[in-house]
Amino acid sequence: MLLLTSIPEMQDYSETQRKHGKRVAVVPTMGFLHQGHASLITIGRQQADTVITTVFVNPAQFGPAEDFEQYPRDLDRDMAVARQAGSDVVFHPEPAEMYPPQYESYVTVEHVSDTLEGAVRPGHFRGVATVVLKLLHITRPDVAVFGQKDAQQAFILKKMVRDLNLRIEMVVGPIIREEDGLAMSSRNVYLTPDERIRARVLFRALRHAEDRLRQGIRAAETIRSELTEMIHREHPSGIDYVAVVDPETFREVPSVERFPILVALAVRFGKTRLIDNVMAEQS
Amino acid sequence: MLLLTSIPEMQDYSETQRKHGKRVAVVPTMGFLHQGHASLITIGRQQADTVITTVFVNPAQFGPAEDFEQYPRDLDRDMAVARQAGSDVVFHPEPAEMYPPQYESYVTVEHVSDTLEGAVRPGHFRGVATVVLKLLHITRPDVAVFGQKDAQQAFILKKMVRDLNLRIEMVVGPIIREEDGLAMSSRNVYLTPDERIRARVLFRALRHAEDRLRQGIRAAETIRSELTEMIHREHPSGIDYVAVVDPETFREVPSVERFPILVALAVRFGKTRLIDNVMAEQS
Repeated sequence: MLLLTSIPEMQDYSETQRKHGKRVAVVPTMGFLHQGHASLITIGRQQADTVITTVFVNPAQFGPAEDFEQYPRDLDRDMAVARQAGSDVVFHPEPAEMYPPQYESYVTVEHVSDTLEGAVRPGHFRGVATVVLKLLHITRPDVAVFGQKDAQQAFILKKMVRDLNLRIEMVVGPIIREEDGLAMSSRNVYLTPDERIRARVLFRALRHAEDRLRQGIRAAETIRSELTEMIHREHPSGIDYVAVVDPETFREVPSVERFPILVALAVRFGKTRLIDNVMAEQS
Repeated sequence: MLLLTSIPEMQDYSETQRKHGKRVAVVPTMGFLHQGHASLITIGRQQADTVITTVFVNPAQFGPAEDFEQYPRDLDRDMAVARQAGSDVVFHPEPAEMYPPQYESYVTVEHVSDTLEGAVRPGHFRGVATVVLKLLHITRPDVAVFGQKDAQQAFILKKMVRDLNLRIEMVVGPIIREEDGLAMSSRNVYLTPDERIRARVLFRALRHAEDRLRQGIRAAETIRSELTEMIHREHPSGIDYVAVVDPETFREVPSVERFPILVALAVRFGKTRLIDNVMAEQS
């Protein structure tokens, strides 16, 4: 497996693949790869001849008070995970090459970028959309694979690609969970053993939401308040949101009128912020 | 010469060209083509195997009080001009296909988009950058050709392409002028005969700026005030700006320390807004 670190090298590599008629998939990541990422690489492997995994902790998507500096990094392990999952290349550029001095071009997907994650993390999705557009220009894939764990991000990126007329198939892979249900995340390493146990409530709460929808509950407020109460019992340091969202528009709905419906939440345990969601189908 | 109006058709055409190893040039225009546009198509012809001229009056770059509705349109004549200048394709999409309902993705090149033209026309360059990025994604050119008449636009688009890692050669063609010096513009048709004569002052003023720089004048304020006075004598309805600009940064400079230096102006005669500029070299 190849490690490429310069943008022109990556562009040359991808151009050569295309010239040889290879179908190219890209899996953009911030590294510290876990089995969730590996599952996305495997999806890329099934869909394309050449799989590029990008590993880049993107400064543009972190707020000034966020964890850019502490975000966990381990390129050697990332290389091993990516290779084992079937990646042909890891692209790992330096921040200074991605954002040279006088860098000033940004993409925004309006409205949806200001709700839920975007409301709590102003500018976050501008940073995400911008870096992904850059990575798509650099790797020029036929397919790009994202994770459902970051449901709003996947929605925004699909919208960006459609709005900007990029001819790229956007594939969203399912959430991969630990045995006790916690959604895999590079940030899980931040949790203390005690927080790690309390964090199990997120998956329990989401399954509770599915149950209640199956029982015919339609008022979003009922679901929100029941989930909020369940989570509060585990003493989080804060609940950023519990939201019932139409996955077609990513807008919160007062009442569940159609399925599938997305229940999404963001909760802090200690200093660690976790997000999770479930797409509930009509029973 | 081919007329294509649908985005997927245009994408297919361009993909086929690339597969056959053809070098593709695009010349984005708002139509109502004149010899200035023709000169850009000729440049495209010299640089590529296949030349695409896009004709699209882009609603996203007009302010609510601006001339989107009245902007002159004449597709038949545009087709004739484009063919004669050597274009292989005219791409002419409908606004509703470029900006379908729920369209929400925009590109901004920050800071430089808020000065000069951007200060007078808020949101203008966001609209320009967005439509050009879309057109570049749709036509996937090796070369894109723009006119120096819209100097700030050319600067912003070159910056966008560099920042976003598009591998496209950006070529800027020189200003083409009428015999009396007026820069060619689709908006010149708005001028009354009397305004048309008074508008000659713009080119006279720019030549005066060149003369003064050649004579050793370095203070931007001197150049600005002399040009403003010259233009005022022709009774414009307003002078939006007279600016002395470093072409490397597109920032106004208080004093000319290096060459080339750009002198740019925007002046209104009646209801018609004209822009023009000159790149002054060290004598």
